[in-house]
Amino acid sequence: MCKRTLQHPQVETPPPQPFLISLKNTLNEILFADDPFRKIRNESKTSKKIELGLRHVFPILEWARGYNLEYLKSDVISGITIASLAIPQGISYAQLANLPPILGLYSSFVPPMVYAVMGSSRDLAVGTVAVASLLTAAMLGKEVNAVENPKLYLHLAFTATFFAGLMQTCLGLLRLGFLVEILSHAAIIGFMAGAATVVCLQQLKGLLGLSHFTHSTDVISVLGSIFSQSHMWRWESGLLGCCFLFFLLTTKYISNKRPKLFWISAMAPLVSVIFGSLFVYFLHAQFHGVQIIGELKKGINPPSITHLVFTSPYVTLALKTGIITGVIALAEGIAVGRSFAMYKNYNIDGNKEMIAFGMMNILGSFSSCYLTTGPFSRSAVNYNAGCKTAVSNVVMAVAVAVTLLFLTPLFYYTPLVVLSSIIIAAMLGVIDYEAVMHLWRLDKFDFFVCLSAFFGVVFGTIEIGLILSVGMSVMRLLLFVGRPKIHVMGNIQNTEIYRNIEQYPQATTLSGLIILHIDGPIYFANSSYLRDRIGRWIDEEDERLRKRDENSLQYIILDMSAVGNIDTSGISMLEEVNKILRRRDLKLVIANPGAELMRKLSKSKFIDTIGKDWIHLTVAEAVSACDLMLHTAKPDSPEKISGGVPEFNNV
Amino acid sequence: MCKRTLQHPQVETPPPQPFLISLKNTLNEILFADDPFRKIRNESKTSKKIELGLRHVFPILEWARGYNLEYLKSDVISGITIASLAIPQGISYAQLANLPPILGLYSSFVPPMVYAVMGSSRDLAVGTVAVASLLTAAMLGKEVNAVENPKLYLHLAFTATFFAGLMQTCLGLLRLGFLVEILSHAAIIGFMAGAATVVCLQQLKGLLGLSHFTHSTDVISVLGSIFSQSHMWRWESGLLGCCFLFFLLTTKYISNKRPKLFWISAMAPLVSVIFGSLFVYFLHAQFHGVQIIGELKKGINPPSITHLVFTSPYVTLALKTGIITGVIALAEGIAVGRSFAMYKNYNIDGNKEMIAFGMMNILGSFSSCYLTTGPFSRSAVNYNAGCKTAVSNVVMAVAVAVTLLFLTPLFYYTPLVVLSSIIIAAMLGVIDYEAVMHLWRLDKFDFFVCLSAFFGVVFGTIEIGLILSVGMSVMRLLLFVGRPKIHVMGNIQNTEIYRNIEQYPQATTLSGLIILHIDGPIYFANSSYLRDRIGRWIDEEDERLRKRDENSLQYIILDMSAVGNIDTSGISMLEEVNKILRRRDLKLVIANPGAELMRKLSKSKFIDTIGKDWIHLTVAEAVSACDLMLHTAKPDSPEKISGGVPEFNNV
Repeated sequence: MCKRTLQHPQVETPPPQPFLISLKNTLNEILFADDPFRKIRNESKTSKKIELGLRHVFPILEWARGYNLEYLKSDVISGITIASLAIPQGISYAQLANLPPILGLYSSFVPPMVYAVMGSSRDLAVGTVAVASLLTAAMLGKEVNAVENPKLYLHLAFTATFFAGLMQTCLGLLRLGFLVEILSHAAIIGFMAGAATVVCLQQLKGLLGLSHFTHSTDVISVLGSIFSQSHMWRWESGLLGCCFLFFLLTTKYISNKRPKLFWISAMAPLVSVIFGSLFVYFLHAQFHGVQIIGELKKGINPPSITHLVFTSPYVTLALKTGIITGVIALAEGIAVGRSFAMYKNYNIDGNKEMIAFGMMNILGSFSSCYLTTGPFSRSAVNYNAGCKTAVSNVVMAVAVAVTLLFLTPLFYYTPLVVLSSIIIAAMLGVIDYEAVMHLWRLDKFDFFVCLSAFFGVVFGTIEIGLILSVGMSVMRLLLFVGRPKIHVMGNIQNTEIYRNIEQYPQATTLSGLIILHIDGPIYFANSSYLRDRIGRWIDEEDERLRKRDENSLQYIILDMSAVGNIDTSGISMLEEVNKILRRRDLKLVIANPGAELMRKLSKSKFIDTIGKDWIHLTVAEAVSACDLMLHTAKPDSPEKISGGVPEFNNV
Repeated sequence: MCKRTLQHPQVETPPPQPFLISLKNTLNEILFADDPFRKIRNESKTSKKIELGLRHVFPILEWARGYNLEYLKSDVISGITIASLAIPQGISYAQLANLPPILGLYSSFVPPMVYAVMGSSRDLAVGTVAVASLLTAAMLGKEVNAVENPKLYLHLAFTATFFAGLMQTCLGLLRLGFLVEILSHAAIIGFMAGAATVVCLQQLKGLLGLSHFTHSTDVISVLGSIFSQSHMWRWESGLLGCCFLFFLLTTKYISNKRPKLFWISAMAPLVSVIFGSLFVYFLHAQFHGVQIIGELKKGINPPSITHLVFTSPYVTLALKTGIITGVIALAEGIAVGRSFAMYKNYNIDGNKEMIAFGMMNILGSFSSCYLTTGPFSRSAVNYNAGCKTAVSNVVMAVAVAVTLLFLTPLFYYTPLVVLSSIIIAAMLGVIDYEAVMHLWRLDKFDFFVCLSAFFGVVFGTIEIGLILSVGMSVMRLLLFVGRPKIHVMGNIQNTEIYRNIEQYPQATTLSGLIILHIDGPIYFANSSYLRDRIGRWIDEEDERLRKRDENSLQYIILDMSAVGNIDTSGISMLEEVNKILRRRDLKLVIANPGAELMRKLSKSKFIDTIGKDWIHLTVAEAVSACDLMLHTAKPDSPEKISGGVPEFNNV
């Protein structure tokens, strides 16, 4: 065995920190983990500081200076490509949200311009998304009927967008972006798949040419609504829809197989719209059961700031809708921005992005737009088309504006069934069954979180799915803290290393002592458990030794390497364990306590209780100290615990 | 430096476990952490098994066999002592709950008998408690007026008791006792102090002889109610109350100073009641503004099973009241049982205790009792009076029964003001300001949890206090998981030990590499944070090295000793970090991953990605591997990350 030749240093108690300083450090760590103002702080000149501050708020000032013609060329190409996707998708998703189709175009004009100024992603393409559209329809539709009361419904949609933007901005300003992280990856996969399933089923309405439909989103109501109206099905509409769906899925398949041909699937929706419109126009299909969009108003976004509804009872509905859709949109937008930033190796500040999203939704809600974010499909097309900066968003906005000003009459004959096909084709890709299989293989709990989100959305409502998955994810965290693992450690032969004997079966335990590794913080939620569990380990070890007639247990070494923190309940627990051990003639030894633990143990005088000599830097030292004592003498006979009177300070 | 002479073993991936077995183990660990059936399972004979099972359910079978005359003597003495406390306290607390005073006596008869058969504590004395009484009054009083509709109110109190008992039994049977642990020690201190403050203020009603009073419990309503009726104050009542309060507090002080004289404060309430009654009887004080109890019905508990209310709308009120009061009562009872068990060195099974509490409340609700638990003061008296077993509870019950059968007329003249004094004296002891100071010294966060519970109760309602404190406690757990500490490790001179350089300032960092210790599990809630924070550590280190013109950074060692678990988001994060590092020409090295981590890393092929040679058993080995490479060659040039097309699988 490798013998130590020098005495190791003692376990250190870090110097006490004034309360306010430690509070400041903690808050800094929670809110400013990425230290976004480092550059500004390091700068000495005030003018330079202001310049850096402005650049921080408006990233456009950062990249505009290096902008050149070559960038512009790339950005124009990618901007036009995404516009060709944005126009049909925008109209489709507005339909999904039960809003006038023109809103989809409006929403692809103002928000992208705002994002170009304030956003820090170079690849994100701004626009509306299917799930948030569906969510808007489901939540607003519960209380206001979009068909009977279209004006109020529209105004509530603007108001919800305003609240979503406000919330996003506030989260960003208060640096509370981490709250969005409560949606785990697994929850998002399940939630998205569930929402996509519901959206696809709802599109059967358009595909079959039905005009009445349920407002519920669960699978049972939707299917019920479809089959109860089977006498209303229009085969012409269905046939047309299936053809376009086949076309769209084929182009998608081609683009997936050959990434260089990405533009095929990017152009397919626009091509479908054009062909569909021509088909209706020449064959007069609108008289044969094929519903069409009808007239779209010419002109760019009218102002809508005066339409926001801040009167009860509707304001709470708008607020609730805004918060939920805002969070979902934020989660998608930030994940998308981050993943493309990773591909191109630049950094995105989540909190700054939130402010950009928030501002674009607030300004959007003033100019007849509804909720926008950074959809994955559009951003992927943008990226693949070779965009260089957010200028591609500006180009897209200009293209959409041109459409709004001059080309809207062209959409008169566009059949609704084409829009349904576009939505279905997009949504089928969202159901990511491979990711679900991956979850099952890797982490069963995540798999169940994902499933519960999926089934919650499909059989309940979208909110139920959200609540279920967030609830399960949080429960998992609490369970981790509530039931930290404790394992027995053994010595790895010929070393001074001690490891979990379950992971390293060759590690050998020593007679007369047991080494327990506590794998987590010691908090009120687990202190009773830890006390019971330590007791049980000792009982079991005692029993085992008695059966084998070996030396009885004398030392309990607690390896605290992984105990990151402790609260007052935890300290009481340790004191209690120490008392119990003393009564059983056992000695408690602590190995490798961390800074926080040492600070609290010394403040609570626990160190004095067990003796500073019984706190060691490593498990190996703790063992050799025990070893020494085992061979020389029994540990100090435990002092008699005063069986004193519990104080009369309670009822 | 201590050189290794032998090659250390490799890091092991534990063998894969079938899903069902690992699920079973996890559930066992969550629900049966203390393995309560070990003895029964180890027994081979069936008859013996049944016997052990019965003894498990009815601990009386365990201790009754060894019961002897000496025990009986002790138990009779302590039983009579606690009865003398139970009778006045019972009447007082029933008043507090706005219930007929006789219910306090009923509740000290049936429940203690049930507990004697099923409970496992030898020291717990069963009875009603002030806080649960107040809570019952506050919650039921919000919807049903106890003065206008006393019968319904009474029946709802029985029903709430029934539901409380049912919930307690279920928690125990389902082994969900750990749910009660969500109330941290700090939260309970604050909550109790707040409730005691409110109770004391409410007693001013009795003390000042007021007959009308607010139903709210917050300090502002209570004080408002008192001062708005200042013209109704009766000085006779107030003077009498102050005298008794002085007497009670003096006896309490004496008993606190001299624990052997515990019986002085134990007897004081009964003495007060006797003297108060005599005073009223002889001076006819009832005609001079001193309110009296009036007639109490003779006879033991009438059945009340037919009075339980299971019809809407009241059943939900009873259910809610039952669950909240039941949890509070449970938390107090189990904490008390546990602390006395620790003094006498025996074990208490929390889940079994819950079943005992639950059964005594269910049977209590059938026999005109309201919520009972194990109050601290009464149990402390029991303990100090030298009780040996739960027989002291039986003796108390018999004494109370004798009182009910023959002595109730004696309480006719008992002045209410004495009861108020008894309550105030008991409650003042609950405000444990020393414990609060201890919290402040030891753990600031716990201190704020405590304060928020206190102010929530005092200025809001009791429920608000509960929700605030539980919410803050849970937030702390989430914060721990959401923001795990990362610290830099350095080498402790002349050893192979690496430790936190903040805790051990003498530890030295090595040039060309940085060792980061992650102090917690890696979950969705912290994976973005960890990625950003690791990135920032590297940036800062890089900057520092550049300033000093030292070797640039080449290796990042992540010490995973404290990473107890990881989920799929965490694994994605590690993959992302690895990609980022490779792009920066840095090599990621993992040290000491635990069993769970290794299992998931190998399943996700992350190990293959970074190479098995870059996973080491200890930090020291990781360092020496890097060291070797630093002196021989640059790390393998990172493969080009395919900048490929993100898949078109999302919207």
